Amino acid sequence: MSRVRIALHEKRSRFLQVPIEPFTIEPELRADEILEKMERISFQGRSLGIAHRVWQKMLGDDVTIFMGMAGALSAGGLRMVVAYLIEHRFIDCLVSTGANLYHDLHETRGRHHYLGSARANDAALAEDRIDRVYDTYASEEEFCDNDVWIGDFVAALEQRPYTSREFLNLLGGHLWKETAQDGILTSAYRAGVPIFCPAIADSSIGMGLSQGRHKRPGSGYIDIIGDIVESANLVIRRPRTATIVLGGGTPKNFINQASVQAEFFSSQVGGHKYAIQIVTDVPHFGGASGSTLEEAQSWGKLAADAAQVTVHADATIALPILATALARSSSTLANERKRPVMDPSLREMVVDGTPISRDTFEETE
Amino acid sequence: MSRVRIALHEKRSRFLQVPIEPFTIEPELRADEILEKMERISFQGRSLGIAHRVWQKMLGDDVTIFMGMAGALSAGGLRMVVAYLIEHRFIDCLVSTGANLYHDLHETRGRHHYLGSARANDAALAEDRIDRVYDTYASEEEFCDNDVWIGDFVAALEQRPYTSREFLNLLGGHLWKETAQDGILTSAYRAGVPIFCPAIADSSIGMGLSQGRHKRPGSGYIDIIGDIVESANLVIRRPRTATIVLGGGTPKNFINQASVQAEFFSSQVGGHKYAIQIVTDVPHFGGASGSTLEEAQSWGKLAADAAQVTVHADATIALPILATALARSSSTLANERKRPVMDPSLREMVVDGTPISRDTFEETE
Amino acid sequence: MSRVRIALHEKRSRFLQVPIEPFTIEPELRADEILEKMERISFQGRSLGIAHRVWQKMLGDDVTIFMGMAGALSAGGLRMVVAYLIEHRFIDCLVSTGANLYHDLHETRGRHHYLGSARANDAALAEDRIDRVYDTYASEEEFCDNDVWIGDFVAALEQRPYTSREFLNLLGGHLWKETAQDGILTSAYRAGVPIFCPAIADSSIGMGLSQGRHKRPGSGYIDIIGDIVESANLVIRRPRTATIVLGGGTPKNFINQASVQAEFFSSQVGGHKYAIQIVTDVPHFGGASGSTLEEAQSWGKLAADAAQVTVHADATIALPILATALARSSSTLANERKRPVMDPSLREMVVDGTPISRDTFEETE
Amino acid sequence: MSRVRIALHEKRSRFLQVPIEPFTIEPELRADEILEKMERISFQGRSLGIAHRVWQKMLGDDVTIFMGMAGALSAGGLRMVVAYLIEHRFIDCLVSTGANLYHDLHETRGRHHYLGSARANDAALAEDRIDRVYDTYASEEEFCDNDVWIGDFVAALEQRPYTSREFLNLLGGHLWKETAQDGILTSAYRAGVPIFCPAIADSSIGMGLSQGRHKRPGSGYIDIIGDIVESANLVIRRPRTATIVLGGGTPKNFINQASVQAEFFSSQVGGHKYAIQIVTDVPHFGGASGSTLEEAQSWGKLAADAAQVTVHADATIALPILATALARSSSTLANERKRPVMDPSLREMVVDGTPISRDTFEETE
Repeated sequence: MSRVRIALHEKRSRFLQVPIEPFTIEPELRADEILEKMERISFQGRSLGIAHRVWQKMLGDDVTIFMGMAGALSAGGLRMVVAYLIEHRFIDCLVSTGANLYHDLHETRGRHHYLGSARANDAALAEDRIDRVYDTYASEEEFCDNDVWIGDFVAALEQRPYTSREFLNLLGGHLWKETAQDGILTSAYRAGVPIFCPAIADSSIGMGLSQGRHKRPGSGYIDIIGDIVESANLVIRRPRTATIVLGGGTPKNFINQASVQAEFFSSQVGGHKYAIQIVTDVPHFGGASGSTLEEAQSWGKLAADAAQVTVHADATIALPILATALARSSSTLANERKRPVMDPSLREMVVDGTPISRDTFEETE
Repeated sequence: MSRVRIALHEKRSRFLQVPIEPFTIEPELRADEILEKMERISFQGRSLGIAHRVWQKMLGDDVTIFMGMAGALSAGGLRMVVAYLIEHRFIDCLVSTGANLYHDLHETRGRHHYLGSARANDAALAEDRIDRVYDTYASEEEFCDNDVWIGDFVAALEQRPYTSREFLNLLGGHLWKETAQDGILTSAYRAGVPIFCPAIADSSIGMGLSQGRHKRPGSGYIDIIGDIVESANLVIRRPRTATIVLGGGTPKNFINQASVQAEFFSSQVGGHKYAIQIVTDVPHFGGASGSTLEEAQSWGKLAADAAQVTVHADATIALPILATALARSSSTLANERKRPVMDPSLREMVVDGTPISRDTFEETE
Repeated sequence: MSRVRIALHEKRSRFLQVPIEPFTIEPELRADEILEKMERISFQGRSLGIAHRVWQKMLGDDVTIFMGMAGALSAGGLRMVVAYLIEHRFIDCLVSTGANLYHDLHETRGRHHYLGSARANDAALAEDRIDRVYDTYASEEEFCDNDVWIGDFVAALEQRPYTSREFLNLLGGHLWKETAQDGILTSAYRAGVPIFCPAIADSSIGMGLSQGRHKRPGSGYIDIIGDIVESANLVIRRPRTATIVLGGGTPKNFINQASVQAEFFSSQVGGHKYAIQIVTDVPHFGGASGSTLEEAQSWGKLAADAAQVTVHADATIALPILATALARSSSTLANERKRPVMDPSLREMVVDGTPISRDTFEETE
Repeated sequence: MSRVRIALHEKRSRFLQVPIEPFTIEPELRADEILEKMERISFQGRSLGIAHRVWQKMLGDDVTIFMGMAGALSAGGLRMVVAYLIEHRFIDCLVSTGANLYHDLHETRGRHHYLGSARANDAALAEDRIDRVYDTYASEEEFCDNDVWIGDFVAALEQRPYTSREFLNLLGGHLWKETAQDGILTSAYRAGVPIFCPAIADSSIGMGLSQGRHKRPGSGYIDIIGDIVESANLVIRRPRTATIVLGGGTPKNFINQASVQAEFFSSQVGGHKYAIQIVTDVPHFGGASGSTLEEAQSWGKLAADAAQVTVHADATIALPILATALARSSSTLANERKRPVMDPSLREMVVDGTPISRDTFEETE
């Protein structure tokens, strides 16, 4: 028999170092303990465990932590998780789609999204003016009421261009004054955490802005190019950064763009030092949402030695577990970490005591 | 202005009944508490919460619970979770791919799978004779040693056809005697839980069987048509069934086929009463792995009023959390539930005291 | 035997009307002939065939055809297909991500993207300053040169806010004057087809704008709220619309938003009459990119009786075939169809001879 | 300004060799001409173009070409495409799921699958006893009639174990004699192309076999371990092989397993020389269906220097175009190529004039 291969090697391969440890059932485990065990299994379970580890490393280091959120996470029940992460400064800067901020505002104003069915009769829903987001419903009329509320706020503002960051801080403040309720916008307002919304024109927040303009011509100017300059200056000012991406979309790219743009003007910028992405898109169709973190290294968006992990999972599964785990494992770390002190309420955002420009990139040598 | 729509309705739509409850962070929550909260959010997070609920309902009812497993779950670190579910009778019958049983045997025999990288240099791995499964490695030589071990066992068996169920029970017994280690095969052997493997020819278990035949012509006959008859008779005998599918593949269909086949011979069979599937495939390419549970209803695989849920998630994320949750929430239910008493060690499997045929469908009126 | 079911029915079910016709091989078939045959098979093949049919219906009707494009389609080799669709007026209005316009500009200026490998060594690429988009490479230095070129153009413009539509028309004109080369921007400029880019801040076009501002403070103001008003007014003016979406993202939602916003101000707007989407995202994670066209009906984005189809495919496969097919089957239709006459080169876009506002929604009774 | 990077390099990077050539519209192009142009674009469009090229290389070389098919391709309208590939010997050996052979038999017997809707009311379908496969319907009663027909055929066979290969050849012959209609089973029968079905127990073909056993105890024995030995001996006999996989599943692995098993017994076997896979699954969940061809190299399933390509697409889009293209570009190649001469109608299959064993691996030095 030619099967000479059967004899077992004496020496192990360098590739066989750390064994998989089969997950064992311990009913009383907490989320962080579960995730720690999952670091030793395979596939996306391992990735989620590693995400917990990488986020801890971020908190222990001196980095500005950006979070991007796309997908209907606020409507889908994750807005208070994001608010928690903001309030307890597990993150320093949020980049969001408009929809997530709008659905947050909707609930902060006391309305709800509702449990629904993904196999609904959409014609019947349309008749009742119910808007469906997969398995979740909302009242279109309540949405219209939000639009008017935003439009009124917009029309009352001083007539000049606002970066999305400044506008959203003002909006959060207005919302807080009116409702005194927690949420993403209000928590960010209170914690001094800036929110950027580069695609604000593609959302109901944008529709509210357009209604403000309709009401009072000359209002509703959002300076999203100012957002580019400002976000890059934030990186130039504090070149050590980390990124946490939920769902891809414009926030994912905007965070990376800030780093790439900053690098043109500062040799100290070298890409994010840490990166976590929780995505459902895949790389092989070439879209940015599904692109790998390895690919990001070719662009310099990510440092070559960055601690990074991609989790291919729905954020509505991954984030509740991950954030609950972090709240238990890393509260002290989050509390005591070095973090930027920001005032995003002014026309020029103040970072660590100095304003940063929205017009000119801050050049360093 | 034509925008008459803005005034809020007095009455609510019948579609707006139960509000989404945003997930809030409580660091000390256990897995079952997390999943209970996730029932009130959206998308796949909600689905995972519902899966926990549906499984509890199965345990509280008088149903035979089938579990199917496909994908590299054993190599990926979930074999002790499945062993736990078998041992504590959260399930009654396992249908598996051969690979999952083979990788289970590999570890039960004291070998390991190893943490690896999905971006490995596969040429370098091949040189070291390391087999890669995404981010997980194993030694090909250890695999070859398993093949020989299975081949020797096969060649020593009485020469006649065995259903995969009978063969796998014998294999589990042999493994238990030799190792006294827990695992899927050994736990099933000890708990009297049958394992079917309809695609055994497409796996390293099958390769081991073929080596048994090579060693001793006349050995290694697996009667997979007998498996069809036997699995249908199991349903005819106990027409109330439930199905839990991990990953699709042949196990998913085989479990459904048992129900469809049984229905031809018994008017009491009416499809599974409960169904959970945790899959990553999608419906729109027409493959069975990703097919919806609604579609299964057209075939009569699933009862029209079945409690059912599909979770679109990697099992390495979903199952550790779900099983940990169940272990805490439902141990008593599992312990006290009505369940089939089976002896899968004989040529004709015994169910509730009576043998069932592998040759003839048991007809009832 | 209880199997009473075997006897074949005399009458057919109402569900069994049109048989699948197995695709047969005819080597000489053209793209349109292939797609016509694919209408009679299943799954996404059928969907692609139907997409061809629905697009033909659009061309035969009196509708304004919007196309959205997201994903790296220009870098990926589809820019001349889109330019063809613009030039021959298979579409009337393009909504795009900034990246697609930037990569188009890059090639129109005489540079290239390059065949690469999806399994590249990204560290080596970074060293050579090569940016990777899955299996496609580009020179970062050539990109930087584009940024400067755009920045110079921006800095030379009159200092006032521009809608993305106006800005992109000016950019296309500048590009045409300098290069006289076909491409998306130049074809749109020449054909009088407006391009909207609601997320322009999240792209290298935006980076170029920010460099213009850096160069000359006061420049680089893009009025994306004006884009909202204008796009809604375009729908109010011509309430019969159709949408073709490639890849989801902000363009998909922006086109739908225009219709929803328009409906607030005009009772004649009732959602798109036709819809085609070619997407790779899936519905079950709740994101807008993967959302179904049925869901869109609940929002009123789509008319209840719309002819619509979703094709789950990579646009780099689907679009070359679909556009080649249309070019053969429907050139006359495209040539003779009723279409809006637009002048997007002015501050206020002119539609069918009358300017439309970017500040005030045009109310109708 | 620190932006020293802007100056364009004098020399090009070694990574920038072959430019993307934007796809241009030529209405009269045939499928092969379209695919040749798609080799110069990106993403899955390029992959499909390369698949055409790799298949041509297979045909020009001296290799045994295996094709695996999983997913509901026969029901979905591709059975005559596969029959064409068999008849014109673009492939030499088919490995299939049972369902694809069953649905082929269904239509060869004169019945149909029907155009349906993916959003059907499944309860209404169940009432009419219509089985749904995504957007395709079939009559359950006609299916039952097939089962009886297969069962009768099985019960009439000599009572001994049959490899799936031998059984399916006999079944194809019976079908041909009765219908004289083309299809997969009948074309394979007539062309002397063997079909393996390792998971035959998980299909309606298996259900038919079980009904044969029910009718006449002692019939319906399928020797799927014999299939393993035989398929490996086929590779040992002709060590140069190629694989074309549609949809993954058991066929994908079985083809690879044949090569791995063969390598144990012959030093001349070194993995497939060419590989094409058209799949919709993804690698990152660890399942075999979505696994990469690179990973296959670590196992030795694929030669290190194999010409290979993965196309992430639905086969109902990719295969009609690819096969139409091949029929035009490569008919002569297929006609004149070196290929195995096989007789799969005997108990021991004959390859190039010599029978091969189903019991003993053929050892070579």
